[in-house]
Amino acid sequence: MILTVTLNTALDITYRVRELRPHGSHRVSEVTERPGGKGVNVARVLAALGHEVTVTGFTGGATGRELRSQLTGTPGILDALVPVAGTIRRTIAVVDELTGDTTQLNEPGPTVTSAEWSTFQKAYESLLPGVSAVALCGSLPPGLPVGAYAGLIRTARTAGVPVLLDTSGEPLRRGVAARPDIVKPNTDELAELTGSHDPLRGARDTRRRGAHAVVASLGPKGLLATTPEGTWQATPPTHIPGNPTGAGDAAVAGLLEGLPWPDRLSRAVALSAATVLAPVAGEFDRTAYEELLERVRVTGEANAA
Amino acid sequence: MILTVTLNTALDITYRVRELRPHGSHRVSEVTERPGGKGVNVARVLAALGHEVTVTGFTGGATGRELRSQLTGTPGILDALVPVAGTIRRTIAVVDELTGDTTQLNEPGPTVTSAEWSTFQKAYESLLPGVSAVALCGSLPPGLPVGAYAGLIRTARTAGVPVLLDTSGEPLRRGVAARPDIVKPNTDELAELTGSHDPLRGARDTRRRGAHAVVASLGPKGLLATTPEGTWQATPPTHIPGNPTGAGDAAVAGLLEGLPWPDRLSRAVALSAATVLAPVAGEFDRTAYEELLERVRVTGEANAA
Repeated sequence: MILTVTLNTALDITYRVRELRPHGSHRVSEVTERPGGKGVNVARVLAALGHEVTVTGFTGGATGRELRSQLTGTPGILDALVPVAGTIRRTIAVVDELTGDTTQLNEPGPTVTSAEWSTFQKAYESLLPGVSAVALCGSLPPGLPVGAYAGLIRTARTAGVPVLLDTSGEPLRRGVAARPDIVKPNTDELAELTGSHDPLRGARDTRRRGAHAVVASLGPKGLLATTPEGTWQATPPTHIPGNPTGAGDAAVAGLLEGLPWPDRLSRAVALSAATVLAPVAGEFDRTAYEELLERVRVTGEANAA
Repeated sequence: MILTVTLNTALDITYRVRELRPHGSHRVSEVTERPGGKGVNVARVLAALGHEVTVTGFTGGATGRELRSQLTGTPGILDALVPVAGTIRRTIAVVDELTGDTTQLNEPGPTVTSAEWSTFQKAYESLLPGVSAVALCGSLPPGLPVGAYAGLIRTARTAGVPVLLDTSGEPLRRGVAARPDIVKPNTDELAELTGSHDPLRGARDTRRRGAHAVVASLGPKGLLATTPEGTWQATPPTHIPGNPTGAGDAAVAGLLEGLPWPDRLSRAVALSAATVLAPVAGEFDRTAYEELLERVRVTGEANAA
């Protein structure tokens, strides 16, 4: 069982419009809705790969009811979301049919009380026994302490469960200091954390700050992993055209499978590229994934033993 | 009891963002939700004026449940919405904090089956006895015949209930031919219907096509009424700054109060202007309404008896 944590769950809504014009009025030609938030996306990819996944985080309000009812229909996913009094957020992606570009509108999410946060921490702790890995994903909703992820990392480490962190800003900084097994920043997040725009230098600095392994996402150029076992870069075979929504979450799913680093990175990059290629945003194309997996190039080497 | 019909009910959501940039990512700083669709807005204004109003139309899905739960809390409004299998639409108004301008995104609404339409027609007919006026408002959801309003007008006329129609395009054209008591087009709708960009000429043509009275909305210039009793224009005292959302629906509420035409137009224009002035989109400012009512200028004259 793998556990994913999404403290700022979302109902992800996609609108198709002909062309988004500020201050204009638009008929939406197509509406799709999907349970979202980074950890929920990671869980969906893991479930599609045949893993059993438990999803936790917060749920509440009409949006929360909708998210849960859609989550219930996804095989392989167990709902362990914790109810709050507030309403979880919607995110709206407005896709421009003319250009294919997307405009994103993200609601702030519910304000979580300290009592609700305590309830969550207890629920989380009780889920850890029997879990092979935990992923802590995405932004924090209003009301949570900025050190929320740092606390959850310490609890996982005490329980002996490997923990991956995928967030940004101050929650990332505090989280790194709590010594997670893996962090997965992109180059912007790495630069914000370390001040360095060189991913290798930034990743090494992040390890010095506490992370055991750093997997930096280089966007279309793949992943760079700096780990206690060695340093590797995995690159997709060609430039992949398509929609990058959810590509980072697919990579996280690949990193949670617990394989040796070169294989793990190949799978993460292939999943990420197969998500960019898929016609539905955030889903991955299985045939493309299997083909890409053969063609991802991994360079680098293990440290001397 | 006044009856308003909203075949394309909506949950109206307002987002505040700093500045809407196409293809950018935006944090929404404030989210508000309100039951919507033109007839629902008309009902809210009538209820605030002390009238008893019954709201009918369609409801369905998670959005419908949310709309009904919010409608239940509005004093003076009776919910007689008819359930459908589909989900009623959301509309999203994105307000730019920098400029105050609004970008509108409107979902299409549920596809209504012919069985659901038959159920609605029976429910509507059973609501008409004891009703002093009925307003048919807004667009048609997918699946309804383009002559839907024309049929509802004939049913109201058979029941002896005065009927107002506020819609556009082909449903307006068909509706006008069914001889409603009042239609309330704006100048664009009038031009589309009659080919004339002169509101007086367009209104007269619309009466020849079947409408008993035509109240043309001239936007910030007020209302022009062409009726069997005479022709009048009502103008607000000054240019009213603010948000015109819902101003047309407030005018419809004023037109349903059944007063002599000059008084009726004054109230409609004052309500409309007091809605533009109000801080919350679609609500009217009562103090402003009472002050404006004294200052609306009505010109024109009754026909010779």
